Parts: sequence; C-alpha cells; structure tokens
Amino acid sequence: MEKLTADKTTLEQLCINTIRFLSVDGVEKAKSGHPCLPMEAAPIGYVLWTKYLRHNPKNPKWPGRDRFVLSAGHGSMLIYSLLFLTGYDLTLEDIKAFRQWGSKTPGHPEYGETPGVETTTGPLGQGFANAVGMGMAQKFLAGKFNKPNFPLLDYQIYCVCSDGDMMEGISSEAASLAGHLKLDNLIYIYLDNHVSLDGPTDLSFSEDVGKRFEAYHWHVQHIEGNDTAAISGAIEQAQRVKGEPHLIIARTHLGYGSPHKQDTAAAHGSPLGADEVKATKQNLGWPLEPAFYVPKEALDCYRLSIESGQKREDDWKTLYANYKKAFPELADEFDRFMKGELPSGWKKALPSFQPKDGPLATRQASNKAINALAPALPFLFGGSADLATSTETTIKDSGDFEAGRFDARNLRFGVREHAMAGALNGIALSGAGFIAYGGTFFNFLDYCKPSVRLAALMKLRTIYVFTHDSVGLGEDGPTHQPVEQLATLRATPNVLTIRPADANETVAAWRVAIEHQDGPVCLVLTRQKLPILDRTKFSSADQLEKGAYILIDSEGLPEIILMGSGSEVSIAMEAYEKLKEKNMKVRLVSIPSLDLFRKQPKEYRDRVLPPQVEKRIAIEAASSFGWREFVGAKGEMVGIDRFGASAPAEIIYEKLGLTSDHMISIALKMLGK
Amino acid sequence: MEKLTADKTTLEQLCINTIRFLSVDGVEKAKSGHPCLPMEAAPIGYVLWTKYLRHNPKNPKWPGRDRFVLSAGHGSMLIYSLLFLTGYDLTLEDIKAFRQWGSKTPGHPEYGETPGVETTTGPLGQGFANAVGMGMAQKFLAGKFNKPNFPLLDYQIYCVCSDGDMMEGISSEAASLAGHLKLDNLIYIYLDNHVSLDGPTDLSFSEDVGKRFEAYHWHVQHIEGNDTAAISGAIEQAQRVKGEPHLIIARTHLGYGSPHKQDTAAAHGSPLGADEVKATKQNLGWPLEPAFYVPKEALDCYRLSIESGQKREDDWKTLYANYKKAFPELADEFDRFMKGELPSGWKKALPSFQPKDGPLATRQASNKAINALAPALPFLFGGSADLATSTETTIKDSGDFEAGRFDARNLRFGVREHAMAGALNGIALSGAGFIAYGGTFFNFLDYCKPSVRLAALMKLRTIYVFTHDSVGLGEDGPTHQPVEQLATLRATPNVLTIRPADANETVAAWRVAIEHQDGPVCLVLTRQKLPILDRTKFSSADQLEKGAYILIDSEGLPEIILMGSGSEVSIAMEAYEKLKEKNMKVRLVSIPSLDLFRKQPKEYRDRVLPPQVEKRIAIEAASSFGWREFVGAKGEMVGIDRFGASAPAEIIYEKLGLTSDHMISIALKMLGK
Repeated sequence: MEKLTADKTTLEQLCINTIRFLSVDGVEKAKSGHPCLPMEAAPIGYVLWTKYLRHNPKNPKWPGRDRFVLSAGHGSMLIYSLLFLTGYDLTLEDIKAFRQWGSKTPGHPEYGETPGVETTTGPLGQGFANAVGMGMAQKFLAGKFNKPNFPLLDYQIYCVCSDGDMMEGISSEAASLAGHLKLDNLIYIYLDNHVSLDGPTDLSFSEDVGKRFEAYHWHVQHIEGNDTAAISGAIEQAQRVKGEPHLIIARTHLGYGSPHKQDTAAAHGSPLGADEVKATKQNLGWPLEPAFYVPKEALDCYRLSIESGQKREDDWKTLYANYKKAFPELADEFDRFMKGELPSGWKKALPSFQPKDGPLATRQASNKAINALAPALPFLFGGSADLATSTETTIKDSGDFEAGRFDARNLRFGVREHAMAGALNGIALSGAGFIAYGGTFFNFLDYCKPSVRLAALMKLRTIYVFTHDSVGLGEDGPTHQPVEQLATLRATPNVLTIRPADANETVAAWRVAIEHQDGPVCLVLTRQKLPILDRTKFSSADQLEKGAYILIDSEGLPEIILMGSGSEVSIAMEAYEKLKEKNMKVRLVSIPSLDLFRKQPKEYRDRVLPPQVEKRIAIEAASSFGWREFVGAKGEMVGIDRFGASAPAEIIYEKLGLTSDHMISIALKMLGK
Repeated sequence: MEKLTADKTTLEQLCINTIRFLSVDGVEKAKSGHPCLPMEAAPIGYVLWTKYLRHNPKNPKWPGRDRFVLSAGHGSMLIYSLLFLTGYDLTLEDIKAFRQWGSKTPGHPEYGETPGVETTTGPLGQGFANAVGMGMAQKFLAGKFNKPNFPLLDYQIYCVCSDGDMMEGISSEAASLAGHLKLDNLIYIYLDNHVSLDGPTDLSFSEDVGKRFEAYHWHVQHIEGNDTAAISGAIEQAQRVKGEPHLIIARTHLGYGSPHKQDTAAAHGSPLGADEVKATKQNLGWPLEPAFYVPKEALDCYRLSIESGQKREDDWKTLYANYKKAFPELADEFDRFMKGELPSGWKKALPSFQPKDGPLATRQASNKAINALAPALPFLFGGSADLATSTETTIKDSGDFEAGRFDARNLRFGVREHAMAGALNGIALSGAGFIAYGGTFFNFLDYCKPSVRLAALMKLRTIYVFTHDSVGLGEDGPTHQPVEQLATLRATPNVLTIRPADANETVAAWRVAIEHQDGPVCLVLTRQKLPILDRTKFSSADQLEKGAYILIDSEGLPEIILMGSGSEVSIAMEAYEKLKEKNMKVRLVSIPSLDLFRKQPKEYRDRVLPPQVEKRIAIEAASSFGWREFVGAKGEMVGIDRFGASAPAEIIYEKLGLTSDHMISIALKMLGK
C-alpha cells in the first residue's frame, strides 16, 4: 500500500476506501446490515467530515458545532466509521461489535448510545425533519444570542438522505416548511443512486427531485458523488448562497466498487458475502487481510480532526469569554439554556381557577398556562399545525417565527403534523433548555405518531398539546373524534400522557410537563367547556402528579369507586352526588394519567384503589382497551368501543351512554339495589 | 328574482349562488361547520356536476360513473348541495339536518351515510390519496375489461382539494406515485384561496405548487376560479391531454360574496353569523328569506342531471349488453366482480404444512398463501412500500402494475406507506370485488395509521401484510421493532388483527381475511422462522377463526393456562412441555386474534379460559397493555414494556425474558412450587 500515499489523490482514495471497508467488514461480521450506503457515500463523508464539518471529536456536545444527521439511518456504518476515524469515543472494537447487544454501534444510529450521533434515524424521513427542526432552533438561538461581531451560534446542519427519505411524506412537509422559512443553514446531500430495496428506483419513483425542491424554494445543485472536488465546490457554494435551504443532488453508486453488486438492490440490505467482499477488495486495491484494516496514513489524516476541532472549540471559547464580558445577562441566559435549568420561581405565575370563574375548556386553561409560563421560560418554543386558534397554543406577546423574525416564539407549521413532530424532535435535540411544544387535534396524533415514537425512544423533552380530545368535539364527526389514541399512547414506552379534568388539573399538568425531562408529554385536552371543580370540597389538583387521586371520599371504606379522566370526571361527579344522596358510600377518583399512576408505589395505588373494593366503574370517552387493569375483574368501564358520530356533543354523550345516569344504573346493579 | 332567468349567465349565477346559500344556511342552522369552501368552490361544483361529471343521480353505484372526491371534506356542504340539487336521494330536509345525530349529512362526508359520497374525507390528504387509488383501480379494470370499441370502464376521477391537502405529506407521496404511473384519468382541482385556518396561507406555505406538480410529471393549468368558461376549458383540456395526471389550480376566494369575511380565515371554520349572512345575501342579490331558498329555475337546471344521467347509464347498459355477447366470459367475471362474490372453490388451493417441511417464517407462509390464492382470485391486487422482498407480498406469475401494463397485479408503492394505505382505500372503494392488500414492516403501521383508521371507519375490504412484527426482527433495532402497534390496532374499532403462530395458522388467517368483508384485516407476521406445530398432536389451525383455541390440554381441568400469540406460541409450547414433564396439569392456548376471540359467545370464551382457572400466563413480544382482560387479576403477562434493542433476535428474547424458562419460573411460583 505504500505507494498509495505518494500523492494527495491517493491519500484521499485511501481515506475514502477505509470507510468503505470498515463498513463492508462491519456488516459482514454482524451478518446483517446495509453495506451499500457507506460504500457509495464514503467520498461525501470523507470530504464533509475532514474539510467542512465544524466539530470537536473530543467534545461532541460543544454548542458551536455543526450538526450532522444521517437521515438514511440504515447506512449507520458510515457515521460509525467517521466517528471512529476522526477520534470520537468510539473504538475499532466498537465497530466490530456492530449490531450486537449493548454495543455503541446499533443497527441504526441511536441518540444517546453513541457519542456524536445527533439523532436517532432509520424510519425514513425522520432525520430529514429533525434537521429542519435543528435549523429552526439554530435560527432562534442565533436570533436571540448572536450580536454584531459575536456570531456565537452560527452553525450549520448537514443532512445526508436517500431515495426513501425523498419519497416519504414527512420530508415533503419538512422541505416545504424549510423553504418557506428560508433556512439557509441547512445543507442536505441527497444520494441519488437510482436503486431502492425492491430494485431500480424507477419502479416507483420518477419525479424530478431537483425541480420539486426548487418549487419549495430550495437552492439545488447537481454533482457526481465520487468527485471530491465537486463535493467541495457544492458545499462551498451552499455555504455562500443565503436565503434558501440547500440541496446537493449527488449521483452516487450503491455498493460502489463491488464488481457484481454495484448499482443493484442486492447490495442494499444484506452483507456482500465472503466472495464478493474479496472481489471488491481486489477491485479497489485493498488488502484482503486483516478485516477492519485501517491504514495508518488514513487514520492520521482523519485524526487531524482532533486538533483542528479542539482549536475551533478553543476559538469559540475565546469568543464566548469576550461575549460574556460584553453581554453578561445574555451569557447567563445562555448558560442556563445549556444546562437546561428552569429559572427559579418559574411556577409562581401559574394561574389557579375557582368555580365562580365559570366553565372553561381545558384547551383554554392550557392557553392561560402557556401564557403564564412564557415570560418565565424564554425557551418555551412552539406552535401548531395550522390550528393555533383551535388548539390555543399561541404565546400572545410573541410574534410569528419567520425569516427576519427568528427570535419570535410562535411556530407556524402549516397543515403538516408529521413535519411538526419531527421538527420538534430536532428542536429538543438542539439544546437542553428548549421546551418544544406542538399542537393539533388529538385524532391527528396518528399523522405524527412516528415522530412521537422517536421522541419517546430518545426520551426527548417535547410537549404535545392535543386538543379536541374525544367525541366531545361534536359536529365534526368520527373522522375527527379520537377513540383509540389514548390506548396508543399508553402502550408506547416512555410517553407520559395526561388528560386533565378541569382548568386546575390542566395547570398542574403543564407544571408536570415542564418538569418532566425523561421523554415526551402528551396533554390531552377538551374542545368543550368543563366546570371547574370546587377544590374547597375536593382534593387539590396538585395531586395530579400522582396520576390518580381521591377527589372526594366516603366515610369509611367505600362500597364502590367511581373514576374517570378528563371531561368525564364531571360526569362521574354527578353520579357520585346522586349516589351519595341515596346514602351509598362512594369514592370519586380522578385518574388523569395512567402512566403516572402506574409509577406510584403499590402502597399508594392500593390506597387509591383498595384491592378489597372490587366494585368499580370507570368512565372515559375513549376505547375501553386497557382499563381492565384499573377496574379489576368485577368492575365496569363506560367507554366507547365504536367510532363516534357527527352531532352536538351533548347528544353524542347521551346516545353513547356517557352519562351519570348510565353510571348510576350500573352502580345500583353492582350494589344489588 | 324573475329577471335573473333572462339569460344563460344569470341562470348560471343563480345555480352557483344556490349552492352558496344552501351551504351558508346549512352551516348557520347547525351553528357549526365551514361555509367558506362551498362559497368559493360553487362555480367549480356547478360546472363540473352539470357539464362534465358522468353520473346518474338515481343510481349512485352505476359502475361506469365518474368518481368525485371532495378531499377537502370540511366543505361537505358543497357536495351535499350538489347531491340534493342534481337529484340524488337527499332531500332539503336532509340538508337542514346538517351535522345532526343520524342525519345523512354529517359534518364531513362519510361513505355509506350519504348516497353519492364516494369516500369519507376530512382528515386532509386522505381523499387525495383515495382518488389516486381509484385511478389505479380504473386503469386495472380498464386494462382487464376494456376491448376495442368497448370502453366499458373509461371513467375519470375528479378530486377537489385545498391548501391543507397540498401541505399534507400523504398527498405528496400520492402525487409522486400518480405521476410515476401516468394516471391521466385523474383530474384534480386545487382551490388556491390563499387562506388557511390560522390566517393567510403565506404564514407557513409559500411553495410553487404548480411547479411541484410538474416535477411529479403532472399536467398543470392555472385558472380563475369564478370564471366558468375557464373552468370548462381547463376540464376539457385535462380530458384531452393523455399520459399525465391533471392539476387545475383555481385561484378562488374563500367565503366568496361575504362583504366582511371573504378572503379571511374568519370565514373558514365558523358560521358567518346572522348579520353577515344577511349582508352576503344582499351583496349577491339573494332573497333574505326564506332560509334554504332554492329558486325553481336553478333546481330545474340541476335536475336535468337526472335525465342525462339516466341516458348515460342506459347507453352504457346497451354497450354492456353487446359486450356480454362479444365477451361472455369476461362479462361473467365482471358480474362477479361487481357483486364481490368469491369464485367457488377458491379455498382449494390453499397449502398446508407439516413439521417435516422445516421452520418457516409466517411472512413466507403468507407468500405461499398469496400465490396459492392469486390464480383463483383475479381481483386480489396489492403490493408493498418498497419492501416486496422483505414482506413477501409478490404474486409470482404477475408483472408490475405500471403504465402500459395496467392489468398486472403487483403494485409498487415506493417508500410511501401512507399513500399506499390511502390508495388501497381508493381501490377497495372502486368495486366490491377488489381484495386490496399492502405490505410494510409492522412498525411502519404508524406511517399509515390515518388511512388504516379510515378503512376501519368505512369498513373497507383491505388487507395489510405487516411483517417484521416484533423484536424478533433482531439487528435493525428499536427504530424498527414494534411494541405498541398491536395495542393500537386492538383499540381501533372495526379492525381485525391476526398474529398467527405458524405457517398453518397463517394460511387460516389469509382464509379469514379473504372472507372478512366488514373492515380491514391486519396480518401480523414474523421475519424469523418458526417451527410448524404438529397438528397431529395439537388442534387444527382452522380454529384460528375463533380468535383463541386450546392447542393442547391437560386431562381434567388445568391448574394453569399458558397462552400466547404469533412467534411466542412456540415458546409457550416449550414451557408447556417442561411443565407437563413435571406432572403439572397445563393447558396451552393459541390466541392469534383478541378481536375474533372477543366476538365469540361467552360460553366458548369460558371454555377456553375457564373463569375458575385464575392461574394464567400470557406471552407476547409486545406491550402488555390490554392483556389484563385475558390473564385476569391473578395472571401474569410476559410482554415488553420498553423499547427493543439492536442485537440478534435470540439474544434479545433472552435479555428481555421472552423465554420458556421465564414462563416456567413464573408458573412454578404461581403454583407454589
């Protein structure tokens, strides 16, 4: 191999092929994975990571760093190779443990598992949308913190994506939004390889991608993906052109170098196989042995990133030290942001409500909470998918986040629920301080669930304001009325779902949501007005944090327990009062969050729902699925195991039996009366 | 009003304004709804329905009819007005009952509730994708049945859509697919009104829609939406231009005619209010009283559709009668298709498997079932979202459905799960005979759930082949491993979910799926190979149709019941055998479908899971949410209440406790041994 080091071109090829064969060998050893993408994208990875990406391998969390998102997450060996080669805390042994239990190199890149991986990707289109959120976050931070001569946060977001990313709807939504917002900090490289899993892409994909992105107002360039000078030129051009996001369409060759599998679907989702590995190594002049061979010259070349990265961060630190002198208050705010600390006293402004204030929809109470919190929480940053008025998500004293006004806090996502949720993930990933929220109708959780799931997998701090949470929305009918969505969320790991019963529980839910740092929180809120429960008579709404609590109790052990969540608590309360009038011993339980309740000690759970009280009735305007756990074998659930209907809300409640009379008749039967 | 009838132009305006004010009055009376869209789109509705749409109001199911899809379903009063005016079985009283319980005029158009409504719309983008599916179905039927001089099925699909439709990702996916397939039978009219719910669309939407659709290879025209001659011209041009789908971008005015609300978001989602209704009627020269005024001249004009529609259908019947003489076998096949009848003996070819055949993944068994069924079921029509090889959904003796080969049965959806599911709905809506299926990884249910939900709401005959159904897929890791998806489906009304335990249960599942006509069926299948259960020892797989059945029993009442679904049945079987060796009385239950099991009579359910046997252990590689109903208060569930991990499948099963040893240790503890 010695002569390969003779000139720059051959060193370049050596570096590029190092990525290729680490990936080939990694997939081969794991007997599973996608060698294709790293083989095709190695030149792009090499050029980008050694020449343009501002990063410090020794501090992957340096706030001034550029972000790199591999939206085509199946090509994970590309990023693992680059992380190892440029000197991150990832060893060759880690590379060899690709796709094994507990390794730092899982099948798809996972945030939190590997230093330098900025987001979890694999489900296509997600990384694309995350990067748009990162672009929004950068613009917001720059709008807030940058000052003349102090470009504190001027990083860029690089994103590598594939045909599949281009085909997924979420990417179209996110691209349209990014173009609208003129996010020129985005530099996307599309690997246009003409092959997808099923064969040539033209089996199903023949659109003009470049023209499509121009229609979104992106700046589009076309290059040959193996031409390193062209890659450099395109990146530099993208860095120069302002006012538009950038798409570099690189004509690449899947499985580049493989004599029999290049440009075929056979190289896509499976190891090359021993014979083809050998043929490919021979074809590209690579030693057959050892596997995982890393030429010293190549490693040395990549490892220059350590020094240059440290210098970059040091320069930034100097900048920051001077910034701190010039703008001490802003610098303090930035420090708090970086630590994700909540400012002291942030809860003080939270409102409380009395019955005399009159009925209030929980979405309205939520708006009051948001607006009470906003002055205290400068990084509460969110909006809705063209339903700001309906979801009540607007921060009143802030403007709309848009080009030229990037310090405003109201995000206008358009009718793009999926891109909204994907972008929220990108925002949450952009700094511990962000409390990113997004609103839509609860039924449209379905439109954004893949991103909510990834927020849960990454344990991100995102808050969803899901309003119009049941048949209680009325006339819009079954297309808009959630039934199974609560069950969906409750079955999803790491998601905290809260469905508050009145305005005060809504405020408590927001408090819990702001404090929760261990995954997404879904606030499930009504369209319709609800009475405000009289807390002089009932327990404090603060107990919401336990998931379920006794609102009001009988003297001594109850004969029967009534429980409910959200808008149905007031129905259960009516039933409670009528049964009490009949001298029954009844306990009324508010159960706003099954997730929180499950986390309580058994002792508390048994106190609220004593095992010996087997007569229980729960009410919730949603699928009964999953409630058996709480009502027990002998209890009953008043739920909705059908789709809703279009009619005024009170009529639907009546027709579907979501009434206190229905609860009472079940109770009397249970009690044998 | 008399002088208005003086000439054609004024009669036209009279007809157009009739739609406007029926809609305005309908929304006003309901105190809920969207008057905006019918006011803006009335000229388009009038021109299309009176001059171009081939329909017969007296037979909304005439197979030769053009299809009309109102993708912007919130404008439902547009279609209700047109249906009433042109003479469908919808009265003025029905119009007055807009958005009331049990009426034929729900808040959003609902298939099955209103004669002439071709699909349920409202969740944006869905109608857009349904219409693409209808376009695919028309091409398939034409490819199969049309003969020279016998254009039996040459209908077109008209679709009216809004900004929201254009922003949703599903529409982008569907548009790209339609352009790829050159579906020139699609004529879409986009109401470009510059206003969305939150305000001017340019708050969040500034892309060049026309250019985007040209990039998808659509034929794009721009017109003024109030210019009836331009509307006619554009429709005629669209009918002429072949080889591309059509988009007519009509610059329209939301709430047209309303002096204070036209072109504002205020006219979007709320009634105009009494004062503005009055001002609008005065502005457009409409009598203030009575509400729901229908000028006789306008009604007469619209009702001409009855005669012309009958004539069109009569002509078609003549054509068909001649066709039947010329092509008697094809005509018979067409008749069967129209009736949705399964050909006699279709089940005969279904395979059965023996343990000696060796282990088989249920996805592989599914492929064998599909290929056994395909020759007998000519309208089994489906494909996958770029995962044909992985989901094993290919019909081997058929080619790919594409321009020039529209009689082939393998659909190539690309990496577009949402458009796939939306298109499947459109195919299912195109004729009772279609058995439309689509495949993807089970985790990507999340990407298409909104369309699956609508299939459930409409009770459509669609089949989803969801493979890679658990952590058993192994190395791809948690981004690809479903956990909560089974709970999601089980909580969704009208969905039948089946997770078969081996190859023979898979065949039985396909049999149930083909016979099921009451909503979508989800087949949840493994990536990994599973042993074939020895049916000489265990009960027949045919019992799968009951949802759960005793695979093998103890003598006398069991001490403990083990149960499981899918790939975990073989784990439960191992546990069964080891416990039996220890002389315990164990029953082993296969429970492939909670949905089917719930529908059995109580007597059967109690026979399989006798209430007195409270020691029960269930195993399923998924969220335990919802299983309490089956394991009872004292039972235990071996499930996965966390996300999965990237590793070889057997390691994951071991690490997560999905093992027979774990079941045995629980059983021994339960039995106090």
